[in-house]
Amino acid sequence: MTTSQKAAILGGGVIGGGWLARFLLNGWDVAVYDPDPEAERKIGAVLANARRALPMLYEVRLPAEGRLVFCDTLAEAVAGATWIQESAPERLDLKHAILADVERHAPADAIIGSSTSGFRPSQLQEGLERPGAVLVAHPFNPVYLLPLVELVPSAVNAPDTVTRAADILRSIGMFPLTIGKEIDAHIADRLLEAVWREALWLVKDGIATTGEIDDAIRYGFGLRWAQMGLFETYRIAGGEAGMRHFLAQFGPALQWPWTKLMDVPDLTDELVERIAAQSDAQSGHMTIRELERLRDDNLVAKMRALKGRNAAVGVLLNAHEKTIAPPSEAVAGQALQTISRIVPVDWTDYNGHMNESRYGQAFSDAADAVLAVIGAGEDYVAAGNSFFTVETGIKYLAELHAGAPIHVETVVTEGAGKKLRLRHSLLGEDGTLHATGEQLLIHVSLETRRACEPTDAVRSALEGLAAAHAGLVR
Amino acid sequence: MTTSQKAAILGGGVIGGGWLARFLLNGWDVAVYDPDPEAERKIGAVLANARRALPMLYEVRLPAEGRLVFCDTLAEAVAGATWIQESAPERLDLKHAILADVERHAPADAIIGSSTSGFRPSQLQEGLERPGAVLVAHPFNPVYLLPLVELVPSAVNAPDTVTRAADILRSIGMFPLTIGKEIDAHIADRLLEAVWREALWLVKDGIATTGEIDDAIRYGFGLRWAQMGLFETYRIAGGEAGMRHFLAQFGPALQWPWTKLMDVPDLTDELVERIAAQSDAQSGHMTIRELERLRDDNLVAKMRALKGRNAAVGVLLNAHEKTIAPPSEAVAGQALQTISRIVPVDWTDYNGHMNESRYGQAFSDAADAVLAVIGAGEDYVAAGNSFFTVETGIKYLAELHAGAPIHVETVVTEGAGKKLRLRHSLLGEDGTLHATGEQLLIHVSLETRRACEPTDAVRSALEGLAAAHAGLVR
Repeated sequence: MTTSQKAAILGGGVIGGGWLARFLLNGWDVAVYDPDPEAERKIGAVLANARRALPMLYEVRLPAEGRLVFCDTLAEAVAGATWIQESAPERLDLKHAILADVERHAPADAIIGSSTSGFRPSQLQEGLERPGAVLVAHPFNPVYLLPLVELVPSAVNAPDTVTRAADILRSIGMFPLTIGKEIDAHIADRLLEAVWREALWLVKDGIATTGEIDDAIRYGFGLRWAQMGLFETYRIAGGEAGMRHFLAQFGPALQWPWTKLMDVPDLTDELVERIAAQSDAQSGHMTIRELERLRDDNLVAKMRALKGRNAAVGVLLNAHEKTIAPPSEAVAGQALQTISRIVPVDWTDYNGHMNESRYGQAFSDAADAVLAVIGAGEDYVAAGNSFFTVETGIKYLAELHAGAPIHVETVVTEGAGKKLRLRHSLLGEDGTLHATGEQLLIHVSLETRRACEPTDAVRSALEGLAAAHAGLVR
Repeated sequence: MTTSQKAAILGGGVIGGGWLARFLLNGWDVAVYDPDPEAERKIGAVLANARRALPMLYEVRLPAEGRLVFCDTLAEAVAGATWIQESAPERLDLKHAILADVERHAPADAIIGSSTSGFRPSQLQEGLERPGAVLVAHPFNPVYLLPLVELVPSAVNAPDTVTRAADILRSIGMFPLTIGKEIDAHIADRLLEAVWREALWLVKDGIATTGEIDDAIRYGFGLRWAQMGLFETYRIAGGEAGMRHFLAQFGPALQWPWTKLMDVPDLTDELVERIAAQSDAQSGHMTIRELERLRDDNLVAKMRALKGRNAAVGVLLNAHEKTIAPPSEAVAGQALQTISRIVPVDWTDYNGHMNESRYGQAFSDAADAVLAVIGAGEDYVAAGNSFFTVETGIKYLAELHAGAPIHVETVVTEGAGKKLRLRHSLLGEDGTLHATGEQLLIHVSLETRRACEPTDAVRSALEGLAAAHAGLVR
């Protein structure tokens, strides 16, 4: 067991609080200095969010939290710290004063990161005794979830300092992007600021509202950018002919008034060649077809994640889905056709086939279809009743792969009082039996979370269905 | 059963092909006209991608595909069509010629959409007999997955035409964003073009490579934008004080050289008021705290979707996870501690608790931990062997909610030859038993996908573990 390391957080707003949570939840001791009398309350709010969200990202427990101390002085906060993070307001004089104070009290080998959105490291380093200890470490909100940190050294930072800084950031789950040449606002904020200024024009000129602009992003290119960025996406758009073709095709548009940003670089042969070569280095190990598949699989997985939460694009997908397929209908003497679908890519695992738990998902969804048939669907749940599964058994007979059409047939083998027992058969397109499932559900009150009798209407529908299936029960 | 409707696709490149797939896979008949002799091959490639990906988005089967016809003439393609989509190259003279030809042959009430990235609808309508039939319907690549369509009418389009167009687009799963005032490049492409031009400068000036710019997007704000856009994200950044505070805080940066886009609107009181009011209308029904939770839950779900695919940010999360927790270790006479984790938000369902299938997921992951202990982990799978689950039984004893810490203890109840039988106990933080699971796995060759004997090393490790657990088997 290594002794835990100490991080000093100077400035505890949304950004400082996010840094604090990152370090603390990854096992570091954290000392905070913020003269704001409200700091402890504000940090508490960020930390509560972080404690809830960050651990959910992992299939393992995070290390035990470090020790959190609120300090009355900057000197106390930075004493013995391995990493010191300055997140003061965006004023150079203020940052200079803080950094000068830091170097008076910090250990000689401490790394001092600044969260500045816009200042260049050489600006921050002006007038310091040990400028080589200070570099830009610019994170993105929410800092406890988004991994990007722009790590920007100047010429005075030793390469070893940059490497050590990057290693520390990686150890707390972040993605340090080292930027070799300093520039105002680094990289990401330049892109963001261009979008922001363009968006302000659209609102000012009455072309779109803030809500419409957000929709244009989250139903469109925002979905792409969570996986591939700008250039890899456009490389695909260029097709087999690649990035040079894309640039030739869209080059002329650079002269058109498609944005207010009319100061554009000339697409010289040299620039085209540089972009194409960099794009080859980045993505050239995959064919366009492979990139398309990768893009599509990732889009499907992300869109399905939002569908599961009924958020953003998920709202649209769920609404559209309801218009596609009619609900299951009971036909006397026949098993219910409960599920008919395609195996999605996010249901597969490292063995390249549908994970065992997703057979359980299909049967869980099949049970929901039965519940809808007996009038115990969404409205019934909203009114405070439901059925919970108490026991399930699955026999796996054959593998399934992404893209395979499957359907589930379900028989009510027992339906009386609080009890509902189902037998499911999971079949492939050609009728092959891939799995069977037995499931026992109990009717519950969602208020008491305990077993109770269903409503008369549901009980009678359930008994009717059980009677109609009586001949199918082996 | 309604008779299926017909869409005409004029131009079958990546965009036209994507439109074609959207209509066809949603049950429309589709007629294509594209003079390119390669059109059928190119469309085939897009359609193959679409047939694979689009159906995976839904928990139900899409309707049966419509009929696809390649036509020799534009007249044949548009005859009887309800929707006609023009996706020709971005040249106004070319689009004019096509649209004039379309209105000579199309039904009087057909809607004619143009995929133009940049032209305004009134430009397209110039010189037409029935300009009111033509509007911009600008989609995003891949058209078969991304739902956004910018629907831009001019003053000559009847409101009923716009409503009908929007209804049709929604019926094929798209998100029509009607833009009230035409402008070059509409909304999304203006934002994209601003980013693109800024990115070209960064490459030209040697600040960053294409790969670094893409990383700055996909590990940072790209993750945010798949759910909330620009303004709702910044509303949160403004905290309890809201959008006015955010604008006051970041207003001065508009004058700074944070992008090459230096033509900026004045942040007058009127503009600030407009943005704040629009933001209130968009998100004012939620507190900042609620927005933060929504943002975080969606981020967690999306990041976990990419983690499951080991793509983009998922690569980072998986690598970090390996540094956090040591693998399970066998201790003689004790159950294996196989899983220790938090219930993530994407494991919960409409009942507000962990879905039954995720108990199966936890037990499936627990089995993987056992396999790692006996030397049948990742490398073993890569070498062509694995264990497949053939039978599982779960008893659900108590509910679990998002954020709950859980752990799983696993006993090898049988381990000999090809057979591995496990008994899992899923426990809460306080030791409450939430579920038990019994699982039978069989050793398989990943080449033949059939049962076979494990390697000697794995067999002997398995037998050793079974012997060590003998006293724990009830």
